[in-house]
Amino acid sequence: MDKEKELEMILDLVASKKYVELKEILKDMNEVDLADILNEIEAQTAVLLFRMLPKGLAVDVFAHLTIERQKEIINVITDKELKYIVEELYFDDMIDLLEEMPANVVNKILLQSNKDERDLINQFLKYPEDSAGSIMTIEYVDLKKKMTVKEALQHIKETGLTKETVYTCYVTDENRKLEGIISLRKLVTSDLDQIIEDIMERDVIYVNTHDDQETVANIFRKYGFLALPVVDNENRLTGIITVDDIMDVMEQEATEDFQKMAAMAPSDEAYLESSVFELARHRIFWLLILMVSATISGSIISGAEEVLTAMIVLNSFIPMLMDTAGNSGSQSSTLVIRGLATGEIEMGDFLKVLWKEFRISIVVGIVLAFVNFLRLYYLVKIDFNIALLVSLTLIVTIVISKLLGGTLPLVAKKFKIDPAIMAGPLITTIADATSLTIYFYFAKLILHI
Amino acid sequence: MDKEKELEMILDLVASKKYVELKEILKDMNEVDLADILNEIEAQTAVLLFRMLPKGLAVDVFAHLTIERQKEIINVITDKELKYIVEELYFDDMIDLLEEMPANVVNKILLQSNKDERDLINQFLKYPEDSAGSIMTIEYVDLKKKMTVKEALQHIKETGLTKETVYTCYVTDENRKLEGIISLRKLVTSDLDQIIEDIMERDVIYVNTHDDQETVANIFRKYGFLALPVVDNENRLTGIITVDDIMDVMEQEATEDFQKMAAMAPSDEAYLESSVFELARHRIFWLLILMVSATISGSIISGAEEVLTAMIVLNSFIPMLMDTAGNSGSQSSTLVIRGLATGEIEMGDFLKVLWKEFRISIVVGIVLAFVNFLRLYYLVKIDFNIALLVSLTLIVTIVISKLLGGTLPLVAKKFKIDPAIMAGPLITTIADATSLTIYFYFAKLILHI
Repeated sequence: MDKEKELEMILDLVASKKYVELKEILKDMNEVDLADILNEIEAQTAVLLFRMLPKGLAVDVFAHLTIERQKEIINVITDKELKYIVEELYFDDMIDLLEEMPANVVNKILLQSNKDERDLINQFLKYPEDSAGSIMTIEYVDLKKKMTVKEALQHIKETGLTKETVYTCYVTDENRKLEGIISLRKLVTSDLDQIIEDIMERDVIYVNTHDDQETVANIFRKYGFLALPVVDNENRLTGIITVDDIMDVMEQEATEDFQKMAAMAPSDEAYLESSVFELARHRIFWLLILMVSATISGSIISGAEEVLTAMIVLNSFIPMLMDTAGNSGSQSSTLVIRGLATGEIEMGDFLKVLWKEFRISIVVGIVLAFVNFLRLYYLVKIDFNIALLVSLTLIVTIVISKLLGGTLPLVAKKFKIDPAIMAGPLITTIADATSLTIYFYFAKLILHI
Repeated sequence: MDKEKELEMILDLVASKKYVELKEILKDMNEVDLADILNEIEAQTAVLLFRMLPKGLAVDVFAHLTIERQKEIINVITDKELKYIVEELYFDDMIDLLEEMPANVVNKILLQSNKDERDLINQFLKYPEDSAGSIMTIEYVDLKKKMTVKEALQHIKETGLTKETVYTCYVTDENRKLEGIISLRKLVTSDLDQIIEDIMERDVIYVNTHDDQETVANIFRKYGFLALPVVDNENRLTGIITVDDIMDVMEQEATEDFQKMAAMAPSDEAYLESSVFELARHRIFWLLILMVSATISGSIISGAEEVLTAMIVLNSFIPMLMDTAGNSGSQSSTLVIRGLATGEIEMGDFLKVLWKEFRISIVVGIVLAFVNFLRLYYLVKIDFNIALLVSLTLIVTIVISKLLGGTLPLVAKKFKIDPAIMAGPLITTIADATSLTIYFYFAKLILHI
């Protein structure tokens, strides 16, 4: 791949100390690719290369480095260099940085900022994790409604390079209340003497600092926005969220749901970068809970000892019944949990989901029971009554598992428990126990044990 | 909520035939909100409202309607109205439309386009599903390198409103080869007499028409792009993909992985809008496969009949062992499948994953076995040998399940099978069978049955 060649070439130039040539190459590179390289190579070379970057690029690269590397760089650069980074870093990246750094580094950073900045930083650090406030930034283009298009464009020309985005501009009054928005597309396609007020959009969609980032992501996706304004409880514009940060949120939220549904504590650290103990710790809690709760199924089996000793063959259908119950249930819970996450399914859809899952489970149950009966009776040539027992159990089990799987996430949400945590790992255990209870109940009934 | 009030108000105005007032309200509304309303109300009113919209807005709203509603509208509007929609719709929306409509509607639409357009449409319809080509659009801003900033801005002013985005502009030569890109931010912050060539970015990241949309999404996320150029095999610029479409792709790809890992055929239709039979059909196939493959576990149990009759208590640990095995395995497979999807884990990481999962599984296995032993021996007061047997089985089972779970997705990918399909549903079944085999083997060894 070109990237490996590029890295090799850079390391060669470092080794032969061709710094002029090196500088020339580095300055035209993409900041994300550069950060990838600096993250990969050894610390000393990384710092060396970092200091060769033009100032502006250095800040962009810095924002993409791993926490470890950022720490190392902060520890060796001069106060002047650090001050530049602190000043130029976008506010959301700065907050991310401060949240991750150890106290001594945080102090070093805060020393480079003035009192107003420190107050603002403290305010931002207080927003709840995963709230709109915690991911917004303050570098937006602020216009006034009496400006002409020409004045607005001039304002953007002067300040645009320091803004996180210039593509959506925000029109505020003297109290920072949001009066409208206008896109740069609208500005560059309008006549220069038009007044902002006359061409801005007034029907602005915005979020509150305390709204959940998942809600924010769903708004972005629904409307296809590039940026979204964030207001405080007094409806004053306090920041904006841009689409590039939202893509990270979408990925992170989906990954966390995957983890929760596979019975793990959610983590936003990358797999390959997490330590073994960290990963083990995230997995043990739920495995323990599920291990202990699986003993319920165990005691249902113990309780049916007489049935099983009377007819030991019944034992061999247990895995199939338990697996099918668990799979049926998690099919339903997965769709509903995902629907809740993307905003497609809402609390009000409880009865709709229940009725839908009921009908689906009847269809699925009958098909599976039918196939199972044919297989057992004609292929395996098992006793008719036993084939009937297993098939009937299948239908009832599938119906109950699917109803539980479909509704449990909604019940969890109702009680403000995370649907993915509640319904993901637990549905299998619940479905297992249910299937066994039904099985042994039917066994006594049909086989007269 | 305001939205319900808004809908009520609109329906009131329709009922009282206050069309002038209605038009005034509709024209300032957001296209996505309008489409939501038109999708919800009855067809006749929807068509009535649709025809009241200003032409430009009508096209934007049309792109967000459900397929059903689009069909109904196409069937009643005049050829002239349809022609306008066909001309103004972004090319990617047009392709989506044609892919979903029945043949007679497709013909009606194609009648409104000229031969060149039809050729282009046919070319686009041929791109593989989920490829970059299938989601790109052709409405981009095309600049030449000799233009000045002033000329470029004038060009954008004249053509910008018909482009999907104006925020990234593409510089091509006479053979449509991509020479560079320049952002509108750069243009509006540069002096008017600068030459594009001197300020454009030459290190352009692009994708090929046949690249997978998941790869495209990962590039967007990694670099935080707003748009990405798509080139053909001759490196000619054939289209662009914008970030709003990529957010849909990200959501769709994650949803599909959720579905596959919960043993369902993937579907990009919304849950509440899919029919019962459609949903049932997507679930039955994998349930059947897994039901039949679970009989392997069943026959392992049957094969251990002598062990189980000799010591019926062993039966009651089966659910716990099977569940823990399944859960351990799917924890690992989930993380690896997700890592593969987001591009964090690659094929080359096989040994890293194996080694990591081995160490994690040792930690997890020992903790679980220890807790389990204490519980069985001291709390349940079970025979020492049996407590030992169950705990040893746990450790070995967890190690094997995690190694399988971690590596199976990579093996699947190696053989070009979808990791989520291969490893998601199957890991539980495989882990089940493994755990039972180990259990009975150890039982014979330790209990001398």
